[in-house]
Amino acid sequence: MFPLVLAILITMAVVAMPHPVLSHPLDPLSPLELTAATSAVLASPLLHGHGRPVSFHYVGLDEPDKPDVVSRRHRAAAHALLLPRRAFVIARAGGASHELRVDVTDTAAPSVVSHGVHRGPGFPMFTTEEQVAASAVAGRYPPLAESVRRRGLAMGDVGCGVFSMGWFGDSGDGDGEAATRLAKMQCFVTGGGATANFYARPLEGVTMVVDLERMAIVGFRDRAVYAVPKADGTDYRAGKAGPPFNGAVPAAGVVVQPEGKGFHIDGHVVRWANWEFHVGFDMRAGTVISAASVRDADAGAWRRVLSRGFVSEVFVPYMDPEEEWYFHTFMDAGEYGLGVSAVPLQPGADCPPSGAGYMDAYYASADGSPVRSGNAICVFERYAGDVAWRHTEVAGPDAPVTEVRPDVTLVVRMVATVGNYDYTFDWEFKTSGSIKTVVSLSGILEMKATNYTHVSQIRSADDAHGTLVAENTVGVYHDHFVTYHLDLDIDGTNNSFVKNTIVPRRNSGVPATGGAPTPRRSYWTVLREVAETEAQGQVDVVNGAPAELLFVNPSKKTKIGNEVGYRLDPGGATAASLLADDDYPQRRAGYTKKQVWVTPYNKSEKWASGLYADRSTGDDNLAAWSKRNRRIKDEDIVVWYTVGLHHIPYQEDFPVMPTLSAAFELRPANFFERNPLIRAAPPRSSPNCSCSPGS
Amino acid sequence: MFPLVLAILITMAVVAMPHPVLSHPLDPLSPLELTAATSAVLASPLLHGHGRPVSFHYVGLDEPDKPDVVSRRHRAAAHALLLPRRAFVIARAGGASHELRVDVTDTAAPSVVSHGVHRGPGFPMFTTEEQVAASAVAGRYPPLAESVRRRGLAMGDVGCGVFSMGWFGDSGDGDGEAATRLAKMQCFVTGGGATANFYARPLEGVTMVVDLERMAIVGFRDRAVYAVPKADGTDYRAGKAGPPFNGAVPAAGVVVQPEGKGFHIDGHVVRWANWEFHVGFDMRAGTVISAASVRDADAGAWRRVLSRGFVSEVFVPYMDPEEEWYFHTFMDAGEYGLGVSAVPLQPGADCPPSGAGYMDAYYASADGSPVRSGNAICVFERYAGDVAWRHTEVAGPDAPVTEVRPDVTLVVRMVATVGNYDYTFDWEFKTSGSIKTVVSLSGILEMKATNYTHVSQIRSADDAHGTLVAENTVGVYHDHFVTYHLDLDIDGTNNSFVKNTIVPRRNSGVPATGGAPTPRRSYWTVLREVAETEAQGQVDVVNGAPAELLFVNPSKKTKIGNEVGYRLDPGGATAASLLADDDYPQRRAGYTKKQVWVTPYNKSEKWASGLYADRSTGDDNLAAWSKRNRRIKDEDIVVWYTVGLHHIPYQEDFPVMPTLSAAFELRPANFFERNPLIRAAPPRSSPNCSCSPGS
Repeated sequence: MFPLVLAILITMAVVAMPHPVLSHPLDPLSPLELTAATSAVLASPLLHGHGRPVSFHYVGLDEPDKPDVVSRRHRAAAHALLLPRRAFVIARAGGASHELRVDVTDTAAPSVVSHGVHRGPGFPMFTTEEQVAASAVAGRYPPLAESVRRRGLAMGDVGCGVFSMGWFGDSGDGDGEAATRLAKMQCFVTGGGATANFYARPLEGVTMVVDLERMAIVGFRDRAVYAVPKADGTDYRAGKAGPPFNGAVPAAGVVVQPEGKGFHIDGHVVRWANWEFHVGFDMRAGTVISAASVRDADAGAWRRVLSRGFVSEVFVPYMDPEEEWYFHTFMDAGEYGLGVSAVPLQPGADCPPSGAGYMDAYYASADGSPVRSGNAICVFERYAGDVAWRHTEVAGPDAPVTEVRPDVTLVVRMVATVGNYDYTFDWEFKTSGSIKTVVSLSGILEMKATNYTHVSQIRSADDAHGTLVAENTVGVYHDHFVTYHLDLDIDGTNNSFVKNTIVPRRNSGVPATGGAPTPRRSYWTVLREVAETEAQGQVDVVNGAPAELLFVNPSKKTKIGNEVGYRLDPGGATAASLLADDDYPQRRAGYTKKQVWVTPYNKSEKWASGLYADRSTGDDNLAAWSKRNRRIKDEDIVVWYTVGLHHIPYQEDFPVMPTLSAAFELRPANFFERNPLIRAAPPRSSPNCSCSPGS
Repeated sequence: MFPLVLAILITMAVVAMPHPVLSHPLDPLSPLELTAATSAVLASPLLHGHGRPVSFHYVGLDEPDKPDVVSRRHRAAAHALLLPRRAFVIARAGGASHELRVDVTDTAAPSVVSHGVHRGPGFPMFTTEEQVAASAVAGRYPPLAESVRRRGLAMGDVGCGVFSMGWFGDSGDGDGEAATRLAKMQCFVTGGGATANFYARPLEGVTMVVDLERMAIVGFRDRAVYAVPKADGTDYRAGKAGPPFNGAVPAAGVVVQPEGKGFHIDGHVVRWANWEFHVGFDMRAGTVISAASVRDADAGAWRRVLSRGFVSEVFVPYMDPEEEWYFHTFMDAGEYGLGVSAVPLQPGADCPPSGAGYMDAYYASADGSPVRSGNAICVFERYAGDVAWRHTEVAGPDAPVTEVRPDVTLVVRMVATVGNYDYTFDWEFKTSGSIKTVVSLSGILEMKATNYTHVSQIRSADDAHGTLVAENTVGVYHDHFVTYHLDLDIDGTNNSFVKNTIVPRRNSGVPATGGAPTPRRSYWTVLREVAETEAQGQVDVVNGAPAELLFVNPSKKTKIGNEVGYRLDPGGATAASLLADDDYPQRRAGYTKKQVWVTPYNKSEKWASGLYADRSTGDDNLAAWSKRNRRIKDEDIVVWYTVGLHHIPYQEDFPVMPTLSAAFELRPANFFERNPLIRAAPPRSSPNCSCSPGS
């Protein structure tokens, strides 16, 4: 939820800069390109007069125009090199957010090609460096030292982190029109070596406000003193929980691939089975999947499916309106950065012990130097014991027939640890043509210190705003809304959104009135509705008639005449926001009341919470853009799908949470002429796969 | 959906009868016990005068009273042997359904201890033998031969199967009060060696009625002639689809367990990691999980979770009201038997190539002899590449800390192929204390022959009642409702159902009225409602406020005072029936409009569709029992949870369907004092598991 940066957050390895081989126009910026971009900005006269120092809050690939990328597949490799490489930079200087585009095609001579200053509300992501600096400033702030002393603690045992403060109108925060880049700070008992789990030991009651530009504490309140929960039982490190261990240990197991991996990574392009796609990286989004095409074996052709997919925002509002908690309404991507929060994946733990491939990622630090995030992404084949399809036939002249195909899938994984929470983001590709996304939540709850040590002390009139998960410790109610940006290009650029509503019908029993002359009284059928405009593209998948969400290419049909398409199959995590429409956090994340939004492709509309999410006011987010109610029928459309979870904590979530996963799946729906797995040979690893003679 | 039995359905291996070692009172009946039970019935004077022959439709364990089983865990093994072994038998004789209980404790001297004749509506499951016989009778039926001839086909190339006909009131079926055991029969083009997939080639338009007692065709209608879809492209056998194969082949992979399996099977008792449970088998339900207890490492105790869990019914209504389709409203468990439909699991395909354990199952044939169902159930550890929990800590004096625990789970799997459909039923046990059930659908669609060869031919006024999935072939709309019987005994026998409703709240901002003095305007909290009676135990999890479904033991609390419990986390498959309440199929399966029902434990209430599902009228099903509105608070309660799917077919479902999975999970919710995984050592297979020093 929030990164509490107390010490050195990451190793700022300024990497060596090998001469790059430019292989794909969607490749993330290389260290050389990052340096070229930030150097050009620092050297530019455009920022002169805006004050120094310049700090870099975002540096990412300014993607080529979509038609250029799409057509590239059909051009010679030499031509591809002609596509310009550009960086998009957001830098703070002189109290303003500067937007710059820098041409880094020639990294030896980068040039700033555009410059603008952001005038509206909202700020870019925090930098790691300013969070470290703020933490140091708090540690020297006398009123905090006094509060710590009053609680019988030593200042050296307390650490504070930067919490985004959201936006709550012109009043209430003492911040006028949010022109100043402020954040709140809260503290924890970190020291004494008692536990690594300082989230379980909040210094409840104390809130500070930090001015991140002046790097000074500008607000302080010590509202009330609460017991600091004890450290005992909070540590999750194996070295502290054991040995001896008395819990269950499953058998050791490892997947062996006798013929090696089935996938190939060529730069950032991954090829596996019937899939080809590009894996990019962005310091805000983390993993970016692009240009995913599936091989149609019957047609002998590659066909486009997903032009670009990434996590656009993770909105996490807490449900406690009190002083220290009301502003806990985090936008993990827009405020802290999922890519920046990527952790090095551990072979054998985060990814299988063998057979996985790893990718490093790079982003820019506040001073513009490149940061290497090692093993940020892994790719592996998943052997989960599932079955891709099967049938046993006991009838007919050829009986018995048993045909079973074990399922193997390909997973692209990244883990972002945003403070207490660990999000594992998976993109899973299936030979059936499906793309499944999974987000798995683990890590540590945000906990509130309380004087309660037993549930019986909580009067029924009180609302603890959470569950007592340990003595003096409430796990606070909250939501997770993970919004995916899915630029579908189903077999081509222009697509339509079809809502297939399942509606009950009455059988009159009388053929003259369209009925069937049988005693059956009811059935259901499917009403096909093509969304014309954005307003029709918004769907609440829970409330309302059951429906299938279909995305079709209206100009491509199967041989028997069905429009080729994919459908989005929501998993179980379909919670929508329950906040009031007029509440500030809801205005900032207004899109969280519908799971589905469909918009026409617009290069600038990448971030559901707006380009400037920190302290945003909701004037530049998905819900705001969509008010224009643009046409989405037979257009290049983008689907925004939000995975939602209401999280009521339980004691099992303490001191660290067992994984809770949420998924959705894009499944081919009349995309292929028939099940594409039919023409696939059974895996060679399954000599007993029960294939009929001839296989 | 329906078993089309054309030839020899199963190998009637009359097994050798070893002297059994009675190990657990819930063990399914052994071959010796099955023979003893049916022999006793055949020899009993009770059935004399009722006519011969006797046919056995159900023979299963008559479970000991629950208190006897529960207390057994604490008694000496010798005492356990004293529990009587009894069989419950449903046999048809003289046109009546006889219910008998037979004591088979001494298999050399079995004795019928009770006998009754069923008087109400409904019939027991079909036997395999009568389906084979009916198929043969149809093959000799002159009017059918004439219809086949009229279509230019040879009778030898056509096969017919038995379709349950449901119940549609006193009129409309010519069957008066459903006193006669009738079924419908429909046919397919099976011959010519053209394809194993005869489901794709229905002899549309022809429907017969068979009297299963007299074994005679008593009704016949050839309503209309439709094109028989071509065989080309319908075969799914590897030998017919290739070689050469041009589809994608993932890399071969196999899980290796260097230290062997982690689970132990002792008779029917499975022990693995922190779990112990009993795996039984029933010819109607298939797998039965009983007496599942989890080890609480912190408490050093085994604690009860699930007394009994099994699939009680699979209701599959089709959405075409026409003559040949309106009665397709199958109850796969109650009419055909999931256990009877279990197929031999293929090592390396249905279950992993190594490391799986297999169990055989036995049931009674129509003549009473035991049938062996080899490899009916497999048990294996699942290494899916998931993470049980993780956290990376970049802050605090001990940073960086990275702790990751890969997840390994235990799966108990059975596959039931009921005619065209293949259901894979998994029970997955997790070290976190969770039990996840997964039902995976594959196999072949029920298809309707049509004269349409292209979508453009379907007039918009027409309702094809399905999707044109191939030329002349409509995949008909339908639902799947898989109802689980879950006798939860959370840490003891008496439990309560708590509906934790998530409700929005307004923050007044004024402390005097209970508000918080902050600009936050809204939040949500949890309203805890304990269900007093069955009416309050019914939940529509889709329509209505979001809620968590919690099952607690009101007399057991954690140290800090939370009631110990488990919560049922629905997966995405929460479709409810859309049939009209007054429609006959809906009356028979009235429970399918709510996903959750809670009833007090009653030994006789095992089958959601009633003991006699074939041609049932809804007078003896879950919805009917629950009308009594019995108390369920602090009682021994049973949860009935229905996984529901609306199935709109797509071309990818042809000629065989890629697997579609649906799941729900029982997760501990304040059951443990804290995450039970904390005290578990990291798997030895993960030398790089990122455990902190000391592990």
